[in-house]
Amino acid sequence: MIDPRVASGLRDLPPAVMIPRERMLAAFRRVFAGFGFVPIETPHIERMEVLTGKGAGSDEVLRQIFEVTNKGGKPGELALRFDLTVPLARFVAKHIDELGTPFKRYAIGSVFRGERPAKGRFREFVQCDFDTIGTTSAVADAETAQVIHAALVAAGVPEFTITLNHRKILDGFLASQGLGALSGQVLRALDKLSKIGREAVLGELERAIDVGGPGLTADQARQVLAFVETGRGGAEVLESARATLGSNPAAAEGLAALQTVLDLLDAAGVPRTRLAIDLGLARGLDYYTGIVLETTVQGWEKFGSVASGGRYDDLASLFTTRRLPGVGASIGLDRLLALMDEAGWLGSSAATAPVLVAQFPGTDPAIPVRLAARLRAAGIGAEVFPDPIPLGKQLGYGSSRGHRLAVIVGPDEQANQVFNLRNLTTRQEDKGLAWSVLEDSVQSALEASKHQGAGL
Amino acid sequence: MIDPRVASGLRDLPPAVMIPRERMLAAFRRVFAGFGFVPIETPHIERMEVLTGKGAGSDEVLRQIFEVTNKGGKPGELALRFDLTVPLARFVAKHIDELGTPFKRYAIGSVFRGERPAKGRFREFVQCDFDTIGTTSAVADAETAQVIHAALVAAGVPEFTITLNHRKILDGFLASQGLGALSGQVLRALDKLSKIGREAVLGELERAIDVGGPGLTADQARQVLAFVETGRGGAEVLESARATLGSNPAAAEGLAALQTVLDLLDAAGVPRTRLAIDLGLARGLDYYTGIVLETTVQGWEKFGSVASGGRYDDLASLFTTRRLPGVGASIGLDRLLALMDEAGWLGSSAATAPVLVAQFPGTDPAIPVRLAARLRAAGIGAEVFPDPIPLGKQLGYGSSRGHRLAVIVGPDEQANQVFNLRNLTTRQEDKGLAWSVLEDSVQSALEASKHQGAGL
Repeated sequence: MIDPRVASGLRDLPPAVMIPRERMLAAFRRVFAGFGFVPIETPHIERMEVLTGKGAGSDEVLRQIFEVTNKGGKPGELALRFDLTVPLARFVAKHIDELGTPFKRYAIGSVFRGERPAKGRFREFVQCDFDTIGTTSAVADAETAQVIHAALVAAGVPEFTITLNHRKILDGFLASQGLGALSGQVLRALDKLSKIGREAVLGELERAIDVGGPGLTADQARQVLAFVETGRGGAEVLESARATLGSNPAAAEGLAALQTVLDLLDAAGVPRTRLAIDLGLARGLDYYTGIVLETTVQGWEKFGSVASGGRYDDLASLFTTRRLPGVGASIGLDRLLALMDEAGWLGSSAATAPVLVAQFPGTDPAIPVRLAARLRAAGIGAEVFPDPIPLGKQLGYGSSRGHRLAVIVGPDEQANQVFNLRNLTTRQEDKGLAWSVLEDSVQSALEASKHQGAGL
Repeated sequence: MIDPRVASGLRDLPPAVMIPRERMLAAFRRVFAGFGFVPIETPHIERMEVLTGKGAGSDEVLRQIFEVTNKGGKPGELALRFDLTVPLARFVAKHIDELGTPFKRYAIGSVFRGERPAKGRFREFVQCDFDTIGTTSAVADAETAQVIHAALVAAGVPEFTITLNHRKILDGFLASQGLGALSGQVLRALDKLSKIGREAVLGELERAIDVGGPGLTADQARQVLAFVETGRGGAEVLESARATLGSNPAAAEGLAALQTVLDLLDAAGVPRTRLAIDLGLARGLDYYTGIVLETTVQGWEKFGSVASGGRYDDLASLFTTRRLPGVGASIGLDRLLALMDEAGWLGSSAATAPVLVAQFPGTDPAIPVRLAARLRAAGIGAEVFPDPIPLGKQLGYGSSRGHRLAVIVGPDEQANQVFNLRNLTTRQEDKGLAWSVLEDSVQSALEASKHQGAGL
């Protein structure tokens, strides 16, 4: 016997996890498509050189790479992708002439990282990315927030906040303080604010060292932190920042761009209550150059951002001399599912068909098969229990998986061409309904059972 | 610069391929769910021992395995899955106590085989499998054909044939001819009939050698072939076989089981015209023990079977002593898409949103953003062109991708709060429509454009 366990850091997804996951992915696909994003797929296996090119992944990610070899292949040539961004860059570099711009793509797929296994950390996980390539338009910037908003609403998240910033505002502020050369170190320190707290960030800021001169003084570190801490709120934050920073050209450009995005989001009907400005929001990745955004769920901030992204100047410089600016974001499917599960926002049903058609011992199996086929033809999912075991066990199967109704035809019902309709939640049973009214009765009962709050 | 090519035998799927593919997968998921199949997902990476256990894969498949290693991992421990059946067996062995039976699962995912690259052969491809585990019910057998039928109808395949057989009929016939010991070799030879022709199959049959005695004589080989060639047709084939083979217990059992399946398919409303019997249908895999089935598309038989499967006695004997019979099938997504593409049955559009909202140079970008948001709120996909480039170029973008309508607001329209609605197929344009009737006008125009046969 071989042990049926999965390899370390990997996992099986059973139906109870997959059903809400598929529902969420279907919602995301509808949202992406509604904005004109088109799907692409790239192989899980890429050439090693594509994945390890300069700047493709951080040193940490490259250490975690899974190499792939087969008989007849040379070692070191192939590997599993660790994100969907490097494959997108390669894809766009290869195909952009046929595709043209703007190119709006979404991609949903597994990525692989050989991280040390830990609770909630897996070596294979799914990313959901969408990007608009080949434009510097503010419409595309605003749309990135619109898509996140629509996707979270479609997923059933009640309240959440999309936090926006523009890289040039912070850059401009640092330049105005004579700290431009240190911006990378400052951004990385600020990025940790919610994780390690203000005192630790102050310490990191003071340890920042300019290669060509001194680092931040304690006073400068406090000023940076003060700028960030007063730079959080609604649109009024932009106004006060214009008053203090408006004379710096980079900051002024960033503030104006962010204001345009807010105005477009108003036009798009995204409620201001779901938007926030945070002038300290940095997002670790060095390649963002314009707006950056992240998303937290109200009351569940401890889960971190569930959807993040930003604008970049040049997507595919590793693969082409053609300059391809773009903007996009990634929705953390598994993180969002874990959050919604903990919050109790996911249905608990592990059934995909709402109706179980029982196979009564001693009756003709053609009857449940025929009735179920009629329900499906009317658009109602119906599962036939395959074996004529005692009815109680069949109903137990339905209750435990989350079927909502059972259709039952015993020998008497068969003789009279009627059926019994049992609500598996309330255990109420309507008896002796005529076969001719099957579809209507089941439809009405399903609508009624929705109001009882049975899992959808 | 790094060359942006994919590795040998792998491929990128651009939007023109992915859009019909996603549509087909969504249809399959709806069909699977409508019968009560639930989704599961297993990792792409399995432990090597799971994949290479005795009987898990054929020698050929095992030679093609992709090994996976990461820093700190030992070589030879991990590999990419080559099908979804071995992972299903492992999954079921591990989880069956929580899951209970019957367990009806579907799985859609990439599998990997290091085959020699050739036209139409890829080292990564998608399988769509569904199986019912833990029952020997004829209802589940019939349902396998029902699901294939519903899936192909949902995919838009006009006419196709699901061919059925039962392993015990052929076994019984061979036993009645004193050829029982040779059945494996005979089945493998018969499986090649459509590929290599009858003369070559006769030759293979004559070369079949019984380990404990002689092989087939030329006469026996001809008799086997005659049985197979007269055993094709509708339900009448079962009747004549009962007359000649009914005294053989195995054959009688197989014939009765197949008759039951046909009766249940009648009850389910699957048209007899889409079903065929072929008593020579063997399906190469040794582990089928009951019904076997395959599916060809009328007029496109050269593509081979697009959906195949059968019943097996014991799914997970590698991993558990628990005996788990089941029945299931696999739909060849990529083969079916290639066939439908060649037949011209796929829409040609590479757009996911039917409406393009142009951004007229010199107008407020908030207007297209607002109008598009209104369309989406009404359930109509709408893509805003991100940049105010000359209108002709924007309309060219829409026409080339397959958007059906364009909504245009120039400076005059902005002043009068009206818009122009252009049909991108006919180039007809309705001018000066009021913003207040946006949703209704677009909805009507979309319905009208459907009848023009514009790509969906």
